[in-house]
Amino acid sequence: MLSHTTHPGNIGAAARAMKAMGLQHLYLVNPRHFPDAQASAMAAGADDVLQNAVVCASIDEALQGVVYTVGMTARLRDISIEMKTPREAMPLVLQQAATQPVALLFGTEMSGLTNEETGRSQLLVNIPANPDFSSLNLAAAVQVMAYELSVAAQSFVPSAQSLQPATHEQVEGYFAHLEKTLYEIGFFTTQNPARMMQRLRRLYARARLEPDEVNILRGILSVTTEYNGRLKTRFDEDQKHVQKH
Amino acid sequence: MLSHTTHPGNIGAAARAMKAMGLQHLYLVNPRHFPDAQASAMAAGADDVLQNAVVCASIDEALQGVVYTVGMTARLRDISIEMKTPREAMPLVLQQAATQPVALLFGTEMSGLTNEETGRSQLLVNIPANPDFSSLNLAAAVQVMAYELSVAAQSFVPSAQSLQPATHEQVEGYFAHLEKTLYEIGFFTTQNPARMMQRLRRLYARARLEPDEVNILRGILSVTTEYNGRLKTRFDEDQKHVQKH
Repeated sequence: MLSHTTHPGNIGAAARAMKAMGLQHLYLVNPRHFPDAQASAMAAGADDVLQNAVVCASIDEALQGVVYTVGMTARLRDISIEMKTPREAMPLVLQQAATQPVALLFGTEMSGLTNEETGRSQLLVNIPANPDFSSLNLAAAVQVMAYELSVAAQSFVPSAQSLQPATHEQVEGYFAHLEKTLYEIGFFTTQNPARMMQRLRRLYARARLEPDEVNILRGILSVTTEYNGRLKTRFDEDQKHVQKH
Repeated sequence: MLSHTTHPGNIGAAARAMKAMGLQHLYLVNPRHFPDAQASAMAAGADDVLQNAVVCASIDEALQGVVYTVGMTARLRDISIEMKTPREAMPLVLQQAATQPVALLFGTEMSGLTNEETGRSQLLVNIPANPDFSSLNLAAAVQVMAYELSVAAQSFVPSAQSLQPATHEQVEGYFAHLEKTLYEIGFFTTQNPARMMQRLRRLYARARLEPDEVNILRGILSVTTEYNGRLKTRFDEDQKHVQKH
């Protein structure tokens, strides 16, 4: 999954790298130019991957149905989302992919993933590089990841799935509900909403929510709002009562 | 070491891949265009690797002083030179590189290594790929190898060197001497010389000759020629003798 790719040549080269390693499902989130002659030229025979590429208008559209999103990063950021090397990550990716869709998410060439995209990842992967020159080309990063995935797949034996993870849209539905609720109850009057949501996303990314848990958490949110609504009604009534006397 | 590279963009992208993985010594054997603006554009900050690249007129010039040459191949050829995956190969490469120069040799884009180049390799490496589309881009192959080397280097502990291998030019000196001798003694009258030399190269590639052994083998060749020379002289004398009678 390539997000906001600037150079169509990189899309073509990524398609070629994928196909050579036996991968085929390419998703493009808001590519600057696509389809494009340069993409086709760089694909060099992986035209089918380009032709079947799914172009999406947003990251959430692209992640529909995905249960495990791995975000690529060149920075060793100070955040609490789990970070692994490609080799460490692949058994986890394969374990999830054995039953449900997973995504490897590559950001734009110049600046990588946005905070919004990082917040939608359950795992971050950093390709170890020269500390003085960590500038991997986008297609080169795709090549390394596709290669590692392909090598890992050859010796992978799926273990019994202990977790039935919620899909991307279930988790995002919860976050939207949570944010709305936190606004309603006035939690954000003393907190930076964006920063707080980022921290809550990290917490739940580590937890890997199951669909039942999403339902429970959203149930709590609903009750919170109702309770808050009842409190508000009672307060309003009390005020009226006070005013009467 | 890139041999007969057609597209200068690939040289630049390879330089970038190398630098990002902490490698710097690029050798170019007869590149079609170099230096070149497209190479510099694709290097994207790895200009120092390009500027320090050593351009050579022949593979033998490029391999001067090298004790271990790893040839890249996309084909699983039916030959007896040892073939490994990148991951299997790297400990061997690092073991050799701990004391003396080694080379990773990449052939031309369209057809890979020539038989001559394969014959100069002590090990062949094949990047496992989609059997229906094994077309890795040259720079992508460099990226995978540089990545594997870099990952392997982080956990590598050199073991005691059991072998002191001969340099490329010592081994090639032996092969030239051997071929000349086989011609002189008339061995090639019943054999295809090119095919026979290829088989002998494979045998000695497995053996990993030491300098002393090269001296011993060349000593045998010298004696063979002298002996053959004496035989010839005696034969000529006998013929004269026969003619006298």
